[in-house]
Amino acid sequence: MRKPSFILDPRLDADTRLAASLALCDVRLMNDARFPWLVLVPRRTGLVEIADLPADEQTLLWQEVNCASAALRAVAPCDKLNLGALGNIVRQLHVHVVARCEGDAAWPGPVWGHGSAQPYAEADLTARLVALRQALAPTAG
Amino acid sequence: MRKPSFILDPRLDADTRLAASLALCDVRLMNDARFPWLVLVPRRTGLVEIADLPADEQTLLWQEVNCASAALRAVAPCDKLNLGALGNIVRQLHVHVVARCEGDAAWPGPVWGHGSAQPYAEADLTARLVALRQALAPTAG
Repeated sequence: MRKPSFILDPRLDADTRLAASLALCDVRLMNDARFPWLVLVPRRTGLVEIADLPADEQTLLWQEVNCASAALRAVAPCDKLNLGALGNIVRQLHVHVVARCEGDAAWPGPVWGHGSAQPYAEADLTARLVALRQALAPTAG
Repeated sequence: MRKPSFILDPRLDADTRLAASLALCDVRLMNDARFPWLVLVPRRTGLVEIADLPADEQTLLWQEVNCASAALRAVAPCDKLNLGALGNIVRQLHVHVVARCEGDAAWPGPVWGHGSAQPYAEADLTARLVALRQALAPTAG
């Protein structure tokens, strides 16, 4: 029997744009110009908690989070990375990597649930996605 | 030359109580009765980001996060685990594991920065620490 194919949660789909596909995860850029913000989504069905992934894929997930963090920092220098796996609203397993700068719109609080997203201008969104793809290219292979 | 000995950040020290010492991390209970909430602190000096840990210790960190998550769930059944590594206020590397229930004080938002901690009654704090120590005993060895 074939594995059911992966379907991205519609809310994640609406809020983000694909930057790159790594071995396990899609790396997606949150369309919110207030914060440089990636969401990593393992292309697996039925996962809610990190522990739902087999151990070898958990290791891969954290490696990909590291690569995505480095890529994000390269295109958007920051004072602190914020990592989160919440899933209170969207249950499909996803990990947030956010580049935080002192004095940004939510500093020093968390970005989740803070105000409303401010979509990028189209040209800025494209430029950021291109830069991220380039920074992730060695990982995306 | 001896390694400088580990000193816990004074704010983490004030806000939490030690539940157990694992191979890498101290597992500490946040003294906030609103949310069953653990903080894992690797006993290493000078770390800010996850990527500051050597790869083998990152693997160990995530294994200990898994064990702590399972222990927390065992003593405080929940609807969703929230995992976070923020460090915007306290820079010493630490990972949050929070047991969230639908309708809790911050649901569905994040717990970080939400209102003020509500300390446990002393007997409840002791009981929770004892239960956590028991649940973590196989890991603490």
